[in-house]
Amino acid sequence: MPQINLGILGLGTVGSGVVKLIQEHADLLSKKIGASLCIKKIADLNLESPRGIKLDRSLLTTDGNEVVEDKEIQIVVELIGGIEAARDFSLKALRNGKHLVTANKALLALHGQEIYWAAAQNKVNLGFEASVCGGIPILRSLREGLVANRIQLMMGIINGTANYILTQMSEEGRDFASALAEAQEKGYAEADPTFDVEGYDSAHKLQILSSIAYGGYVDFDRIYVEGISSISPLDIKYAREFGYKIKLLAIAKESKGRLEVRVHPTLIPEHYILASVGGVFNAVYMKGDAVGPLLFYGQGAGQMPTASAVVSDIVEIAQDILSGRPSRSNSLPLRKAEEAGIQIMDVSEARSRYYLRVSALDKPGVLSRVSGILGDHHISIASVIQKERHAESSVPVVMMTHEAREGDARGALKEIDQLEVITAETICIRVDGE
Amino acid sequence: MPQINLGILGLGTVGSGVVKLIQEHADLLSKKIGASLCIKKIADLNLESPRGIKLDRSLLTTDGNEVVEDKEIQIVVELIGGIEAARDFSLKALRNGKHLVTANKALLALHGQEIYWAAAQNKVNLGFEASVCGGIPILRSLREGLVANRIQLMMGIINGTANYILTQMSEEGRDFASALAEAQEKGYAEADPTFDVEGYDSAHKLQILSSIAYGGYVDFDRIYVEGISSISPLDIKYAREFGYKIKLLAIAKESKGRLEVRVHPTLIPEHYILASVGGVFNAVYMKGDAVGPLLFYGQGAGQMPTASAVVSDIVEIAQDILSGRPSRSNSLPLRKAEEAGIQIMDVSEARSRYYLRVSALDKPGVLSRVSGILGDHHISIASVIQKERHAESSVPVVMMTHEAREGDARGALKEIDQLEVITAETICIRVDGE
Repeated sequence: MPQINLGILGLGTVGSGVVKLIQEHADLLSKKIGASLCIKKIADLNLESPRGIKLDRSLLTTDGNEVVEDKEIQIVVELIGGIEAARDFSLKALRNGKHLVTANKALLALHGQEIYWAAAQNKVNLGFEASVCGGIPILRSLREGLVANRIQLMMGIINGTANYILTQMSEEGRDFASALAEAQEKGYAEADPTFDVEGYDSAHKLQILSSIAYGGYVDFDRIYVEGISSISPLDIKYAREFGYKIKLLAIAKESKGRLEVRVHPTLIPEHYILASVGGVFNAVYMKGDAVGPLLFYGQGAGQMPTASAVVSDIVEIAQDILSGRPSRSNSLPLRKAEEAGIQIMDVSEARSRYYLRVSALDKPGVLSRVSGILGDHHISIASVIQKERHAESSVPVVMMTHEAREGDARGALKEIDQLEVITAETICIRVDGE
Repeated sequence: MPQINLGILGLGTVGSGVVKLIQEHADLLSKKIGASLCIKKIADLNLESPRGIKLDRSLLTTDGNEVVEDKEIQIVVELIGGIEAARDFSLKALRNGKHLVTANKALLALHGQEIYWAAAQNKVNLGFEASVCGGIPILRSLREGLVANRIQLMMGIINGTANYILTQMSEEGRDFASALAEAQEKGYAEADPTFDVEGYDSAHKLQILSSIAYGGYVDFDRIYVEGISSISPLDIKYAREFGYKIKLLAIAKESKGRLEVRVHPTLIPEHYILASVGGVFNAVYMKGDAVGPLLFYGQGAGQMPTASAVVSDIVEIAQDILSGRPSRSNSLPLRKAEEAGIQIMDVSEARSRYYLRVSALDKPGVLSRVSGILGDHHISIASVIQKERHAESSVPVVMMTHEAREGDARGALKEIDQLEVITAETICIRVDGE
């Protein structure tokens, strides 16, 4: 039986999961590939931590160059994480004619074009299923299963940490800080949770998803990003009264060649299937012009789910090597979105409904002044909740608007917050759902 | 640009959807394939019905042989439906060295082995993504995205008609007959609904899904099948009181080389994501040993969702033709499950919890006699609902049992139904959920 030689960069959580999976499922995999997978070298700076796997120590090195320069290695698996070293080794591997599998979403979101071009120029394959939504086969589905569709919409819960926090806030009535602390305790959130809770991790994945779905590279800085740290239990409670849940969504919407790409907390109707995705789970809802609505749901992170995706890419590349199939890298998003006929819309032009929570002194005429300002900015109110009247104290006035331009909403909010009866900055959360 | 020639058998709903999709997305598809798709011939017995598509009439023929014998046609797309003609033409096409794409689940569930072998022996490809769950890329995900997993469990709502009826019964309080009539009126159920409501259509799809997931051909008659026509609004109501919904599920469970394959109405906890799949939608929940739980959700039928899957197979095969990749047909379930090391378990050995609705005269000691018989058969009761005591009239006693052997449950039911206090056959519905 022929043999495919692998080199692994990074023996952390995911790296050791990959080794474990290849070892445990060796028979299954070699049957599917028609060749055995041989791990030839593994590089990691730390060779002393226990990994829970059996390894011949002669495979180990602290020097990544020994992997990317090994002439016998055909597929390099980059699982270092971070940007600079991962980028250097990845480019070296590709330039040395090696196929590359990576789970590194930050690398692809920020330096994807360079990586994609290096793969195309060196006529090798690049697998990155594991970079988005762990083990959910979403990129492969976009590339293959949905190949006959124009993707009109993607709405994803693609950060498990943020979803866990929002779920705890919603189900247990906790506030953000206490839900975050619990997530950290359980190992679902990192010591510095910024990336996850401020939406950057979701935006990285959205960059990759939207670039694949629309066939053009979306510049990361064109993605609008807003996190969940300012969501309060009060907003979750009011949202529920209107029949909504609050989720951190990554959204891509295309219409007539204009693409919106944004990450922000969003009210979605509670009967939506996406609203029932709780805890650390991920899900992507999408709509194709032929296939209609689809949802993919699963664990978006974790050792073995991510390893499952990494190994699926290794298998595909191994099969391609054996069958002599030419590189698939020409189908990567080599061109910028704009060159592929996709204009990225500025967020100020996006249209959405809005949930507004206005904190105002309970004086006569407040609602009329607020709604007057909204009207001046072409925003009409769909429904209002105003409770607990206590003379002269501050009360929340909660409103759902009809669809409006983001630019208009921002203009209106600025004016509202300057009224002397307003006691705190108005909370504004977008509302989605067709 | 090179050209791939297609022949289509059957220009019904799905056939015309495929033609429409290939016409409308010609640019998109030729870019992804690197070749243009050319429809060379279309056979249908009825050439007069309007199809809503523009076609050169010279492409049309009433003789399927003109398609399967055309030397220039590389891919034959079988969308006739039914068994005999579809089987003849499919085998002829394969034996003439043509790749085959089919949406015909009944054909594959009943004659799959013959078709798979013909594909393998003639070294051509066979695409059948559209045969299961319409546009949801579930087979491709099993074959590729989840290739590194042993699939431990699949639970699917894979018949839209049955799910629509159960959803209407659950949400509107209708009985089976009236929900069925409404489904027929809306075009969701056929004049003869037997296939859909009695579970056979689900079983066909389960045959295909399980054969792919476990790498061995599952004989159709080893699948246990039970439909929804005996489900009453009363059971839906009691299920809700226990916190469950009733769904028609197709289930495959594997443990230590023993496989359960069954289709039947099932109580699942209402907070399960599968429980929120309503209307005509389909969803498959599965668990892989590495990836953990996954759910795929979408439209399981309909013209364009099915066409989306058919065209995705055409694209894959066209790419394989162009790259000279050898046929993938060796990975089809050519061997019987038993030869692949998978024993199909008899349903009497399966273990499950049960919902029992016993109709008994309201006399003292009934519950104790019923629970005594259950105990004799090693079945213990987890909870009971008994309401509305009217002396001497018949009352339902509703029970949830702990896990028990199916054979034991059947034995107990037979004995219970022979008690003189029992006024109607006991309703027994399996309960699932890990």
